[in-house]
Amino acid sequence: MVTDDPTVHERLIRETLLLVAEMPFDRSPPWMGQRIHRLLRELTGEKDPYRQVKQHSNNLALSLYAELKERVRGSADPFATAVRLAIAGNVIDFGCRSHLGDDEVHQAIEDAMVGSVDEVAMADLRQAVEGVGDILYLADNAGEIVFDRLLIEEMPQDRITLVVRGSPVINDATREDAEVAGLNSLVKVMDNGSDVPGTILESCSPSFQACFARSDLIIAKGQGNYETLSGGGRNIFFLLKVKCPVIAGHIGCDVGQVVVLRQNRRSERV
Amino acid sequence: MVTDDPTVHERLIRETLLLVAEMPFDRSPPWMGQRIHRLLRELTGEKDPYRQVKQHSNNLALSLYAELKERVRGSADPFATAVRLAIAGNVIDFGCRSHLGDDEVHQAIEDAMVGSVDEVAMADLRQAVEGVGDILYLADNAGEIVFDRLLIEEMPQDRITLVVRGSPVINDATREDAEVAGLNSLVKVMDNGSDVPGTILESCSPSFQACFARSDLIIAKGQGNYETLSGGGRNIFFLLKVKCPVIAGHIGCDVGQVVVLRQNRRSERV
Repeated sequence: MVTDDPTVHERLIRETLLLVAEMPFDRSPPWMGQRIHRLLRELTGEKDPYRQVKQHSNNLALSLYAELKERVRGSADPFATAVRLAIAGNVIDFGCRSHLGDDEVHQAIEDAMVGSVDEVAMADLRQAVEGVGDILYLADNAGEIVFDRLLIEEMPQDRITLVVRGSPVINDATREDAEVAGLNSLVKVMDNGSDVPGTILESCSPSFQACFARSDLIIAKGQGNYETLSGGGRNIFFLLKVKCPVIAGHIGCDVGQVVVLRQNRRSERV
Repeated sequence: MVTDDPTVHERLIRETLLLVAEMPFDRSPPWMGQRIHRLLRELTGEKDPYRQVKQHSNNLALSLYAELKERVRGSADPFATAVRLAIAGNVIDFGCRSHLGDDEVHQAIEDAMVGSVDEVAMADLRQAVEGVGDILYLADNAGEIVFDRLLIEEMPQDRITLVVRGSPVINDATREDAEVAGLNSLVKVMDNGSDVPGTILESCSPSFQACFARSDLIIAKGQGNYETLSGGGRNIFFLLKVKCPVIAGHIGCDVGQVVVLRQNRRSERV
């Protein structure tokens, strides 16, 4: 995305292979992704190589927004429909693929509307949202964040803090994307101070850590947040599309499945 | 496939990454594959890690043989049907994927029967086969070689020499697979003396090189043979399923497409 020059491609590939060859394999994929994408930004001198990809994703999602909003409004269960759409948006992930056609986004929407979902977890999420207390909503990717808006609009916005990444990494959503999605005027937006494509608390800012610790409910989008927060001793609802066989095996579902997962305090770390 | 021990997996991954990081990038993928799979065989002490995979593929293909043979016999154009089936068998390739379901083989068969094919190249191939002279048939993978038998049975067997790899590499067909497919009793079988998952002439035995040089017609199966023989100054018919965007772009077709390609003597090397 940064250049057509094959000598630069070759250098990036070689340096990345050497980096990965020496990595500790007991770390999570987002930990590895942080190192890889830091290296790529450093070697290319490009602070945000996925900027155009993120713009395209935001524009695509915004062009679908009105239609999807109608779909939520016209639904027999607007909350559940919004949850499904928010998860459908999680298909927009350039951490696991290098290209995504607009048609694949459309397909993901239709798949998410009919795919089976854990109805108990869905009911628990609804109840948790209807309760009192602060809600922390951890966004995942650009474009996807417009789908998140559909869900956030079905929730009590005065109790929600939306969290984005602290700096660009892959196509993960940053403050700029939250703004483009129109979320700044709806909820409080903060960044986590980190460039991990997930949420590794130790690498986040003290203010985010404090906010994370005192929130009554955490909604975490995407596989990166699942890989870094599962088993961490907080009650979290994970909303994601499953993107690899390892995580599918861990959760007990199929690759591509739409997942609403309530984390128990005692569950195992990935 | 060799072990469930994650410490061995980790070592194999690290050593492979280091090897690839230092590789010359102007070599063909089969050249790289030779080095990678030599290293894997050396590190695991397993001379043929894909043995079970190859047996499974052969058994699956043999279980389909009678039905496919009927399909060729009942066809309005048995030769063209056999060509399409031989290409369908090229889906059985563990160089580009780690798992293949039996249902995917069935699907590949149906896709190959209806997929568009260059009809001029098909007519040229038919004419070339009907001519006089020696035919060299370069096999690709185990399992696929049973599909090749269907095509070989539609050709003048007394003029055909079937060529397999000189030693195990990935799931490429060796003498053992030719035998299991029942081809020894139909045609002359030779191996090329090489462990490249393709055909790099310099790495092949002198007897194969001589045979290659004097053959009147060469039929080469699979992408590995295309990657190593295209542009090499011989008239060759390549029969393959296209497995990556780079080769799709080079040939000018889509990934997954069934390809019958006549090489001109003057064509460019990949």
